Amino acid sequence: MSDALLPPLALHGWYMLTQFVTLVPSDHGASDDDRTARLRGLADLLAGWSDLGDDGWSGLYGMVGGGSDYMLLHLRPDLDGLGEAERALRRHPSIHDVAVTGDYLSVVELGLYGHTLGLARRAEEEGVEPGTEAWQERVNELLADQVGRDYTRHRLYPRQPDAMPYVCFYPMNKRRNPGQNWYTRSLAERARLMQEHGRTGRSWAGKVSQIISGSVGLDDWEWAVTLFSGDPIHFKELVTQMRYDEVTSVYGEFGPFVVGRRVATDELAAELTG
Amino acid sequence: MSDALLPPLALHGWYMLTQFVTLVPSDHGASDDDRTARLRGLADLLAGWSDLGDDGWSGLYGMVGGGSDYMLLHLRPDLDGLGEAERALRRHPSIHDVAVTGDYLSVVELGLYGHTLGLARRAEEEGVEPGTEAWQERVNELLADQVGRDYTRHRLYPRQPDAMPYVCFYPMNKRRNPGQNWYTRSLAERARLMQEHGRTGRSWAGKVSQIISGSVGLDDWEWAVTLFSGDPIHFKELVTQMRYDEVTSVYGEFGPFVVGRRVATDELAAELTG
Amino acid sequence: MSDALLPPLALHGWYMLTQFVTLVPSDHGASDDDRTARLRGLADLLAGWSDLGDDGWSGLYGMVGGGSDYMLLHLRPDLDGLGEAERALRRHPSIHDVAVTGDYLSVVELGLYGHTLGLARRAEEEGVEPGTEAWQERVNELLADQVGRDYTRHRLYPRQPDAMPYVCFYPMNKRRNPGQNWYTRSLAERARLMQEHGRTGRSWAGKVSQIISGSVGLDDWEWAVTLFSGDPIHFKELVTQMRYDEVTSVYGEFGPFVVGRRVATDELAAELTG
Amino acid sequence: MSDALLPPLALHGWYMLTQFVTLVPSDHGASDDDRTARLRGLADLLAGWSDLGDDGWSGLYGMVGGGSDYMLLHLRPDLDGLGEAERALRRHPSIHDVAVTGDYLSVVELGLYGHTLGLARRAEEEGVEPGTEAWQERVNELLADQVGRDYTRHRLYPRQPDAMPYVCFYPMNKRRNPGQNWYTRSLAERARLMQEHGRTGRSWAGKVSQIISGSVGLDDWEWAVTLFSGDPIHFKELVTQMRYDEVTSVYGEFGPFVVGRRVATDELAAELTG
Amino acid sequence: MSDALLPPLALHGWYMLTQFVTLVPSDHGASDDDRTARLRGLADLLAGWSDLGDDGWSGLYGMVGGGSDYMLLHLRPDLDGLGEAERALRRHPSIHDVAVTGDYLSVVELGLYGHTLGLARRAEEEGVEPGTEAWQERVNELLADQVGRDYTRHRLYPRQPDAMPYVCFYPMNKRRNPGQNWYTRSLAERARLMQEHGRTGRSWAGKVSQIISGSVGLDDWEWAVTLFSGDPIHFKELVTQMRYDEVTSVYGEFGPFVVGRRVATDELAAELTG
Repeated sequence: MSDALLPPLALHGWYMLTQFVTLVPSDHGASDDDRTARLRGLADLLAGWSDLGDDGWSGLYGMVGGGSDYMLLHLRPDLDGLGEAERALRRHPSIHDVAVTGDYLSVVELGLYGHTLGLARRAEEEGVEPGTEAWQERVNELLADQVGRDYTRHRLYPRQPDAMPYVCFYPMNKRRNPGQNWYTRSLAERARLMQEHGRTGRSWAGKVSQIISGSVGLDDWEWAVTLFSGDPIHFKELVTQMRYDEVTSVYGEFGPFVVGRRVATDELAAELTG
Repeated sequence: MSDALLPPLALHGWYMLTQFVTLVPSDHGASDDDRTARLRGLADLLAGWSDLGDDGWSGLYGMVGGGSDYMLLHLRPDLDGLGEAERALRRHPSIHDVAVTGDYLSVVELGLYGHTLGLARRAEEEGVEPGTEAWQERVNELLADQVGRDYTRHRLYPRQPDAMPYVCFYPMNKRRNPGQNWYTRSLAERARLMQEHGRTGRSWAGKVSQIISGSVGLDDWEWAVTLFSGDPIHFKELVTQMRYDEVTSVYGEFGPFVVGRRVATDELAAELTG
Repeated sequence: MSDALLPPLALHGWYMLTQFVTLVPSDHGASDDDRTARLRGLADLLAGWSDLGDDGWSGLYGMVGGGSDYMLLHLRPDLDGLGEAERALRRHPSIHDVAVTGDYLSVVELGLYGHTLGLARRAEEEGVEPGTEAWQERVNELLADQVGRDYTRHRLYPRQPDAMPYVCFYPMNKRRNPGQNWYTRSLAERARLMQEHGRTGRSWAGKVSQIISGSVGLDDWEWAVTLFSGDPIHFKELVTQMRYDEVTSVYGEFGPFVVGRRVATDELAAELTG
Repeated sequence: MSDALLPPLALHGWYMLTQFVTLVPSDHGASDDDRTARLRGLADLLAGWSDLGDDGWSGLYGMVGGGSDYMLLHLRPDLDGLGEAERALRRHPSIHDVAVTGDYLSVVELGLYGHTLGLARRAEEEGVEPGTEAWQERVNELLADQVGRDYTRHRLYPRQPDAMPYVCFYPMNKRRNPGQNWYTRSLAERARLMQEHGRTGRSWAGKVSQIISGSVGLDDWEWAVTLFSGDPIHFKELVTQMRYDEVTSVYGEFGPFVVGRRVATDELAAELTG
Repeated sequence: MSDALLPPLALHGWYMLTQFVTLVPSDHGASDDDRTARLRGLADLLAGWSDLGDDGWSGLYGMVGGGSDYMLLHLRPDLDGLGEAERALRRHPSIHDVAVTGDYLSVVELGLYGHTLGLARRAEEEGVEPGTEAWQERVNELLADQVGRDYTRHRLYPRQPDAMPYVCFYPMNKRRNPGQNWYTRSLAERARLMQEHGRTGRSWAGKVSQIISGSVGLDDWEWAVTLFSGDPIHFKELVTQMRYDEVTSVYGEFGPFVVGRRVATDELAAELTG
């Protein structure tokens, strides 16, 4: 397998389902009491999911613009966990009061561009055949030694920082056009461009926190990016700065961007019924 | 007919109809008993189709994200069989409880890139005029001798492995852009690229099982791919790895991806009425 | 007028309106008897249109997939005839039971690529000024002498062969991209490519019958293609083979494909009310 | 300001609003008498707008295909006049019986490619600074001297010829792609291509009449074209012929095409209530 | 950081939410009095927002065409202010009478192309490390000295001029195609092109007033442009002229354009209930 064909190694964490939700206004004649009770029940359900420990979490975000009233993020250890959350919402009595207008499926991913090439070669030098499962396991071991298990846990099982209530969500692709084809550049070149890109990202540490999740084979784009911040202007500044990185200016293709603010767990009922 | 113009030979198996289905929530005031009875009837109908022997099968999948609640796969010996399944659903009393939000028509296909060129030349050397029906039949005979009838039966009349309940479905095209035109490369080049691609696919044997169905002249994309697996992360890993194959990185164009899990036959009623 | 600028000559036959139609399910509480009576009336209307002699015909097709339940083809001598058919359906009592979800307007066309250049030059040599109406009429006369009036009648006022109940419908364009611009190639080159393409088409004679209708200036694509066959696999095989013709591989751009089967005149009532 | 940067001069006439309208079928149980009365009122309103003298006119067209039942053209001296017509329809009691499914805003425009360059230079030679308002006024004066006030009145305040009841409407752009960028060609080159295009158009004089309206800065495309004819086949023939002009084959980008027939003023009531 | 990678500096002012709104017609049977009361309440709400001093303003615009009846502009000091306005509308009793059919989020921006390069170098010469926060603050100080605080206040906290009641709104991108990639040109080149573009804009001073707002990381396009004028023909003329600037002809990509007229504060109630 030539370098150019080598996909980057990736570690996978929680599965993630993003749902876009709009409140259906109450009927003129219907009892508002019933509706309020149903939405209070929905708030209770969501509150119970706000921190499931090792089983993930769900968050509700009030969007500003973006074509829907709310965004829901669900993070769970496996696909079935997401399916259960989705079904629980669908079967909840509040189904007549909320409409899911869109969704996105991905899995939290730690792409290992910077380390891939070196570790891949080292594993090969140890005599493990490249591309095999044994080789992948060996590379993963070498990786954990280098970056540490804490770092990978933080990246693969991410939580939203308390001081960063704002959220920005968007999907993206790498282009495969003539003259702009990410997938035909060598792994070494891709690694170099991703490291440059990573430096831009790290210069925002403390101001912006991110979840990178992959969706190749799972949904319509290749990745989803979820940013958290204490000031929404940082979303604009960071995404603008990154647009001048070669990996983005030449290869990045972006889907819709939405922005909102997390509804605190103890404000869920007031938000939904207010 | 020059090599470049020669389409690959293909054997055809079952016709396949993919439907995307969403449950319509019950009206507040309507009788849930009636609705439950209708959906129980729908579950019975689907259960009866789960294994029709040589006449194919239908499967219901609970989707995670993907914009609809369920996906239905129908495989039948001919187009009329699919039309009958579609009409039976449309005329079922549960028509008010389920909404078909999309569909896709294709026919299971075994494209013979690796063998095409050699067999085509051999048939021609035997004096059969290339492109005629006699020539196609002769090539088909030669093929069955080489790959065996078991292999082609398995590929043309596929069933979902019991140990692989997860499903991934997506349509795709080969590009015809300047500098990225699959259809103007010679058959020999196309065969070489497809063999490389096939090697990637075979490295996933035992982990991922696939149905390749063609839809040129039948629906909006050229192919549909249906993957089954026991672990949905394999969908992401396989599709990612294949994206670095030249046949994909340069020529592949992808439609929407959806992912779900098959509802076991004895759980259909509980799933639809729960 | 240089050769490159010369559009191909075309003869025009019946106007054609394609409609996509879906049955609206009956209301739970409404009288099914009324609905059945309305749909029986619709069946009578369509049956009366199934053969209007020189005034054309209408056909109803049960679609498999394709996003709608039925397709209606209307062929009439002029645009007003199509408008009357459309209005008659719109004002029929069954308007609440059927929903038109899409339509396409075109006119049956016999493009004269192979003969155009020679006939155009001959008319010019006779002293008729190229591009004038007199010149067009003279070319048309010369054409009828060559291909015969029976052939053009068959092509311009087409009927569906009884032995070919299946239908495939799709619109298409010729590209005008840099490096793939059909409209800047000389008429001689276009004629050569269309003749090659015509040979592919004629190799399917007896298996597939076609209606080529033009829609430049009438609807969103440049042409609509309607194929009839006794076996729907021929649609896939023919369209695949043609995709390797240069005129298609480089210049063809395709819209959505739909496939179905004609409802026989004496089965219309059972189909719509069953 | 270099030639390449010089936009063509344009004179502006009536503002134009195109609306696409579909009749909502009457409810089963509702009184048809009320509906008929409301639609009769709508017909009266439209009849009163069919000729407003210097204040423009409105026309109703029965479409064949095109995705809506009717098209409405409104031409008025200013934007406020169009807004008033739009509001009058929106507030009419028939609002429940008709649905506006689309609209397009433009202003009738007389682009002065052939004359622009010469007049622009002459104005500059007279010492008027190019690009200033004084310069524009001087160019307009020179233009009226050359083409005559009757011609510009006919072009800027167009009416539909009585003998041409058929209509064809479509929006279009000039491309700005690499290698196909209209806006980076010099004004002299653009003028030459537009004159060639104009010759094609003038060869249809007497058969097809046109309204060219500009929508840069007003709606989603750069121009709207409205053609009138006594025979709808002329729409297909003219648009086909123009597609081979360089200005179209290389630079033209087209939106949806719709075709219909004007409803005569004294048939409006019968048409809407029939 | 090389020049090519350097994003332009930008100052940020009010956040801006654009909403597209359509009036839902009253039910036949429902009480018009109730509806009128609700819409009168909505008019009061909007009137109260027409001038919030330093806290921004909201304006209602009657659109001509553009696919919706009204556009609402909200300008507020922060994202939460916009979210509160959005929620207040969503929870207003008139929610059944108005439908939000689209929205757009951006933040008023003053891009500093002309000054960026010089100020950035001067700050660097003073020993401040480029790209750091200290460096950005120093550049902002230098900027305020040069262009003055009044100018930036006028640009960052814009109000609609009384004599310019017409509005034009559209989103736009800079292209990143091969051969047309804005983001890979050097900052110096970008600054030169933007200055040329700015000259075109300034030639319309007094006739057209503009709000430039950025939406990278906030919504689906990179910028939104809001133009005000006393004559809507200026929108067409200005946008046409700018289309010939290199920054637009080569790099500009445009979204939908809509045009309308502001409803004066004391006419809001009559407009909504009339």
